[in-house]
Amino acid sequence: MTAWNPAARDCPSRTLFATVGDRWNMLILLALEDGEQRFGELKTHVDGISDKVLTQRLGVLTADGLVERTAYAEIPPRVVYRLTPLGHSALPPVHGLFDWTVGHMSDVVASQSGSAASA
Amino acid sequence: MTAWNPAARDCPSRTLFATVGDRWNMLILLALEDGEQRFGELKTHVDGISDKVLTQRLGVLTADGLVERTAYAEIPPRVVYRLTPLGHSALPPVHGLFDWTVGHMSDVVASQSGSAASA
Repeated sequence: MTAWNPAARDCPSRTLFATVGDRWNMLILLALEDGEQRFGELKTHVDGISDKVLTQRLGVLTADGLVERTAYAEIPPRVVYRLTPLGHSALPPVHGLFDWTVGHMSDVVASQSGSAASA
Repeated sequence: MTAWNPAARDCPSRTLFATVGDRWNMLILLALEDGEQRFGELKTHVDGISDKVLTQRLGVLTADGLVERTAYAEIPPRVVYRLTPLGHSALPPVHGLFDWTVGHMSDVVASQSGSAASA
């Protein structure tokens, strides 16, 4: 068993650490939590993402096995994206980071405005 | 109380969501977990980070109130960085993402090599 270590410069797991912490990737995983979506639906749910960035991120998430792309031979053709079990496994830590952000944003705003100095 | 929502395009909390998920920032927070460090020590512990990136990230983390910079009037001058209580509060979710990465990297490698297709 390989000892993966994202803290080590040359460990390939560092790339995965960056991938799973990427803001867009986290928002995509959260958007897919409730079920499969088409590209256009995802674009709506990941508020503000561009076609280019969504395409690039879906490519990475699919290659890494967190997201599955399925094309149905229908007329018109239909392509959907859904979380794999591996993608689902990433949801708890992603929620952890999301919830921390929501819960501590006010503290950060106070710090940025300098009012923390007088606290 | 403001309802912060990193999923909303114009919510300023999205920037914090990106900050706390940033690979370098996460590695810096983890490196400071055991106590204060000088710049050079941090550079050693955050394996592979450049002076420029470390300086930029410490600037953001300090402005956001996660890291505290203290300069001691000694000869030679000594500057140390340490986590604030806010910075400490981010450690559990950061550990969550780190541990997920370590625990699932082998699955991702399998997916990337295509062997997942035959699983």
